[in-house]
Amino acid sequence: MNIRVVLKILGTVLFWESILMIPSLVISIIDNSYDINAFIISIVLIGIIGLILKNIKTNNFQLRKREGYASVAMCWLVMSLFGALPFYLSGAIPSFIDALFETASGFTTTGSSILQDIESLPRGLIFWRSFTHWIGGMGVLVFTLALVPSLGARSVFLMRAESPGPSPGKLVPKLSDTAKILYVIYGAMTLILIILLIIAGMPVFDSFIHAFGTAGTGGFSSKSLSIGYYNNPCFEWIIAIFMFLFGANFSLYYLIIKGDWKSIFKNEELKFYGITVLIAIILICINILPLYNYSIVEAIRRSAFQVSTLVTTTGYATADFNLWPMFSKSILLMLMFFGACAGSTGGGVKFIRILVLAKSIIYEIRHTIHPTSIQTVKVDGKSLDNDTLKSIMIFFFAYVAIIIVAVLIVSLDNFDFMTTFSAVLATISNIGPGFEVVGPMGNYADFSILSKFTMTACMIIGRLEVIPVITLFAPSVWKKH
Amino acid sequence: MNIRVVLKILGTVLFWESILMIPSLVISIIDNSYDINAFIISIVLIGIIGLILKNIKTNNFQLRKREGYASVAMCWLVMSLFGALPFYLSGAIPSFIDALFETASGFTTTGSSILQDIESLPRGLIFWRSFTHWIGGMGVLVFTLALVPSLGARSVFLMRAESPGPSPGKLVPKLSDTAKILYVIYGAMTLILIILLIIAGMPVFDSFIHAFGTAGTGGFSSKSLSIGYYNNPCFEWIIAIFMFLFGANFSLYYLIIKGDWKSIFKNEELKFYGITVLIAIILICINILPLYNYSIVEAIRRSAFQVSTLVTTTGYATADFNLWPMFSKSILLMLMFFGACAGSTGGGVKFIRILVLAKSIIYEIRHTIHPTSIQTVKVDGKSLDNDTLKSIMIFFFAYVAIIIVAVLIVSLDNFDFMTTFSAVLATISNIGPGFEVVGPMGNYADFSILSKFTMTACMIIGRLEVIPVITLFAPSVWKKH
Repeated sequence: MNIRVVLKILGTVLFWESILMIPSLVISIIDNSYDINAFIISIVLIGIIGLILKNIKTNNFQLRKREGYASVAMCWLVMSLFGALPFYLSGAIPSFIDALFETASGFTTTGSSILQDIESLPRGLIFWRSFTHWIGGMGVLVFTLALVPSLGARSVFLMRAESPGPSPGKLVPKLSDTAKILYVIYGAMTLILIILLIIAGMPVFDSFIHAFGTAGTGGFSSKSLSIGYYNNPCFEWIIAIFMFLFGANFSLYYLIIKGDWKSIFKNEELKFYGITVLIAIILICINILPLYNYSIVEAIRRSAFQVSTLVTTTGYATADFNLWPMFSKSILLMLMFFGACAGSTGGGVKFIRILVLAKSIIYEIRHTIHPTSIQTVKVDGKSLDNDTLKSIMIFFFAYVAIIIVAVLIVSLDNFDFMTTFSAVLATISNIGPGFEVVGPMGNYADFSILSKFTMTACMIIGRLEVIPVITLFAPSVWKKH
Repeated sequence: MNIRVVLKILGTVLFWESILMIPSLVISIIDNSYDINAFIISIVLIGIIGLILKNIKTNNFQLRKREGYASVAMCWLVMSLFGALPFYLSGAIPSFIDALFETASGFTTTGSSILQDIESLPRGLIFWRSFTHWIGGMGVLVFTLALVPSLGARSVFLMRAESPGPSPGKLVPKLSDTAKILYVIYGAMTLILIILLIIAGMPVFDSFIHAFGTAGTGGFSSKSLSIGYYNNPCFEWIIAIFMFLFGANFSLYYLIIKGDWKSIFKNEELKFYGITVLIAIILICINILPLYNYSIVEAIRRSAFQVSTLVTTTGYATADFNLWPMFSKSILLMLMFFGACAGSTGGGVKFIRILVLAKSIIYEIRHTIHPTSIQTVKVDGKSLDNDTLKSIMIFFFAYVAIIIVAVLIVSLDNFDFMTTFSAVLATISNIGPGFEVVGPMGNYADFSILSKFTMTACMIIGRLEVIPVITLFAPSVWKKH
């Protein structure tokens, strides 16, 4: 691997991280809160390290798949390590592993928190905490929709020219142009959300915080009670709808701009996503109706918000769904596993993969009955080649395997099974809250260091679609060639 | 589909079922218990129906894959429906769905029970209940090691000539000869176990019961406290070792008879099975040591028995592992999911599939780093072709998908998540007990009819390796051609 190129990329990223910390510093200065020094030290330190690495000399700028994967995986890790500094240096989070957990949870747009009392933090730190979601969400979009296709990778995403759905690798020919289009769409949608929230009556600062969390499908709130704090149906509906939108494939928005509505209505992942969400909302609404005195309006709102927040892997809460019946919890757990759409800021297995796997079962049945049939697995009318199919299946197994291993490690803490299982699922799928101890009104504070470390790894592994991260553990990647 | 051939096969099977009920009737007559009439009516009724179906006239005896699968899937269902008669007619199990659940649990060698007080049953019914395990175990061996390869099926098992490991389809050329060899090995091993248990001091009747449950990796006991009732380390070790043996691939025993030790030591599934069991025993032993006053002898025995009983999907119990720490429970849960070896009487995903899937992840990583590499996934030194690999992956996804759907349905009963999840896992993997309410000291009595029906379906789907059963739901299977 060409380590110099990787270090140069990390340097650029760190340099930007220091710049992106400035707004938080400005807020701290305005509030004159105790985190000013922590931000100044962090910005200077990260900036200097970034500049040094950025200026490493190299003759070979070639970016092969292994350098691309290594940069991206290291990128999330390094940004989290350095991004944790303001929390740690200010003393707001006294344990470094806790600060790392919180920051990785931010950049990976997970939203799992170890904080027991969010309101006690100064606003600068709250802003930085939520801003990491927004930065992370943008990073993921560029990673999955621009960088991966440009590396010609087959295993990470379904985004090859031959692969189904809109092919965003071909949105526009150049990587940097694709990235720019994505920035603009992402920024514009965030801005609209902020404005809507302010119009609806949410305080300006809170509107920014919750828009960051929604855009990145992260879920950090400025309130311990999350969106439930406001008890405002208007906020809930706005955020529920925007979470759903940020959970859809961003290349669809590019198609809308181009006016290509035909491709959008043909998009099978979008249909599957929409129908699943609709059915889940109705089933849960019926199931929880008695809990809300048979008020359909309230039950629909609670159900829609909770379905949207978990399927898009955001993780905001308006109700303590720990108290809901097991049937509703099971549906939510299933949605947590499914995750959002490919090419969104959401995590999880992704709807397109579930769709392909479901279709491959039908294919297998057909093949059993008619062994001579030559039908293939098709999505959006296009046949999937064998290699893509195999990659999706291997991804699925790797995902399940990592969940099993992580559950084994976290179970050493001897929490109940629902807590253990949902904590792992909530971190690898980048959701945030799980059930029981880590439920919407709970947090991750009481886990051991080993568990926190495991779940931090889960967040990064899940965020980067598994294979790029575990590739780094292959010794041959690190050979100098 | 040629329905006449399928009905003929079902007739033969039913005829044999009525014959196989006779020993239980004899026991009832000796005891002069209240179930005599129930057995007589059942034997006569099943015998007559069997004879009628057996003599259906058909000109076409061709058995294609779809007829083979349909016969096998219907076979387990029909045997369970009729096998439930003695329980229902005698009044021992007043609800027919309960009787069906219990009998399907027997024939599928699951061992999940709705009975709250086993000791109150007459011995004839207890014998029949456990005998279904033994019959079911033999049926599975013939199905997986003789019938499936003879149909040339690729999806169900790894048993094609090209596939890895010993190729039992080729043990001997003819289907009936392979079946005979399997009967002899299975019978001989059961007999040895019965003799050993009697020598060790277990009552003769109980020795038969527990040998049936061990051979079929079923787990029905004549005691509500299962093997724990005897509190006899000698029984525990004998049964633990035999469970392990019945969980291994039976074609290996044929290789032993032939003296082909080389193939056995080369067998990767066996190695993986052995090593996993060993590691699990050690980890759990360390984890539960404090619970047994730091007595290593006792902790090892408890751990070895519980690991062996769950990994082989038998389901006997000597300790209430509900009370063990979460880490031990997680390991056991993982083993429940893995299941035993292919070509054994055990259920679950099977070690060979887990091994192939794990190897395919390594393959994918290698392929990512070296896109031009032409390495393939190999087991026992032989390359797996793409179709077999795809089948294994589709099986895995179908297995997970059925677990998710079943959990959703069973969660309507509003039990806690561990109960719901482990009940589904315990039935689809043909284990028997799960955790919490369905733990080793609990039972399945309190589930709703819908849940019992779902779990009965899970048992049969899991037993027959998923694809053959779901194939029956494809409309084109039923077309007359």
